[in-house]
Amino acid sequence: MTKQELVENIFRKQSFLCVGLDTDLKKVPQHLLNEEDPIFAFNKAIIDATAPYCVAYKPNLAFYECFGLKGWMAFEKTINYIKENYPDQFIIADAKRGDIGNTSAMYARCFFDETGVDSLTVAPYMGEDSVTPFLQYEGKWVILLALTSNKGSHDFQLTESTEGERLFEKVLRVSQQWANDEQMMYVVGATQGRLFEDIRKIVPNHFLLVPGVGAQGGSLEEVCKYGMTKDCGLLVNSSRGIIYADTTERFAEVAGEKARELQQQMAACLQTIG
Amino acid sequence: MTKQELVENIFRKQSFLCVGLDTDLKKVPQHLLNEEDPIFAFNKAIIDATAPYCVAYKPNLAFYECFGLKGWMAFEKTINYIKENYPDQFIIADAKRGDIGNTSAMYARCFFDETGVDSLTVAPYMGEDSVTPFLQYEGKWVILLALTSNKGSHDFQLTESTEGERLFEKVLRVSQQWANDEQMMYVVGATQGRLFEDIRKIVPNHFLLVPGVGAQGGSLEEVCKYGMTKDCGLLVNSSRGIIYADTTERFAEVAGEKARELQQQMAACLQTIG
Repeated sequence: MTKQELVENIFRKQSFLCVGLDTDLKKVPQHLLNEEDPIFAFNKAIIDATAPYCVAYKPNLAFYECFGLKGWMAFEKTINYIKENYPDQFIIADAKRGDIGNTSAMYARCFFDETGVDSLTVAPYMGEDSVTPFLQYEGKWVILLALTSNKGSHDFQLTESTEGERLFEKVLRVSQQWANDEQMMYVVGATQGRLFEDIRKIVPNHFLLVPGVGAQGGSLEEVCKYGMTKDCGLLVNSSRGIIYADTTERFAEVAGEKARELQQQMAACLQTIG
Repeated sequence: MTKQELVENIFRKQSFLCVGLDTDLKKVPQHLLNEEDPIFAFNKAIIDATAPYCVAYKPNLAFYECFGLKGWMAFEKTINYIKENYPDQFIIADAKRGDIGNTSAMYARCFFDETGVDSLTVAPYMGEDSVTPFLQYEGKWVILLALTSNKGSHDFQLTESTEGERLFEKVLRVSQQWANDEQMMYVVGATQGRLFEDIRKIVPNHFLLVPGVGAQGGSLEEVCKYGMTKDCGLLVNSSRGIIYADTTERFAEVAGEKARELQQQMAACLQTIG
């Protein structure tokens, strides 16, 4: 998907919501456990209920790998289901990969050739040659970790260098030499508040993938206030706050309601940029 | 496996060789492609030929994920084969994972509960709560990326902080608060030469997993000279230099010879520490 297509979807649907498909068998409603593939059955119901209100889905690979073969099968079925039924959805494989060049090239082949997702989250620690193999696929995106939503983000990402910038700022600055805003996005946690201002000084036009609204305590209003650009520039993710909002047979219906609530707040944010 | 058991294996076998199982279907001998599971058939032959000369195996997950379900099946069969037939081998899942706490916990469950490997490589960028979930499993190890073997290691890992240390040094220092040398190792590339001296000032007793000898150009002599401790403290990995040394029907035999050559060089290194 191109940046222009993504922006069009956002304004058409009045939403920049990404639904995180972190599907944990320990949390899905009991009655689904009798299904042949409970993970896929859960995802399918969630997707059907939330698709009108979001523009992206983000399955986190950990939740699928955890179940070995069955998990991978559920992951692939989920991706195919979205692509066949909701082709306007942007699909993010949240995998946080990154390795030496020939290995990153294998991961790229895996995700972009085999599963056909639109984008992959990538960790920056190993530098340029660990990231560039993912950039060889036209229409596919790298979403690089910059400033994450968790407490541990303070351990290294905020380290100030003798060059006068913090590590996440160096990641933003240096990685712009590898790809432009048509192929690269950055992960910035909703919990980071006013640091969004500092981030927008370095990447004024890039899309940011923003986890951490909801269960992790980030504020949508703050994210919009400090992070939004003229073409939105945000994909705000919610996982647990939507997909586990209800654990009865009404789970999908309630997930749809929660997604719609967020979409309406997002529509109001989008008004501010016309 | 405990540190003491690993050290005993190293001195008994006079080897600190780790064989990297980066099995690429494009590089395995033609005749194996007729097998039902060519990846596993290749690994099994390589393992049988090299086991006398090494103390560890390191499958890189990228090479298995790339083939989806079939790849995962080959990965699990490979782990089971090693555990059943060569229980004294230390198994490293080279996955370079790391995510927010609840997600890292899922990865930990996946690798330590489900597949039963001894250790997992983890990326440090997201900090403490992305690493500690992997430390909840007794007898299991985290191998944290510190200073990698690739060119891109210079992009961020060598960044000097205002606290007077480089990023990889901060990773080494801070992460020692999370676990001791009985549960944590570090990845340090063989290509980093004399930087091993700086590393040993911070982690004098930890094991280091050292990739980059062979295809990437690192020198075993230098690694031993600057990185070895009184109980060895090194696991030196070779992947392509062993497993693709020959691409005919003799591939396993030649892999065994290459592993034996390295083992003999390692035995000489071990002499120097008695």
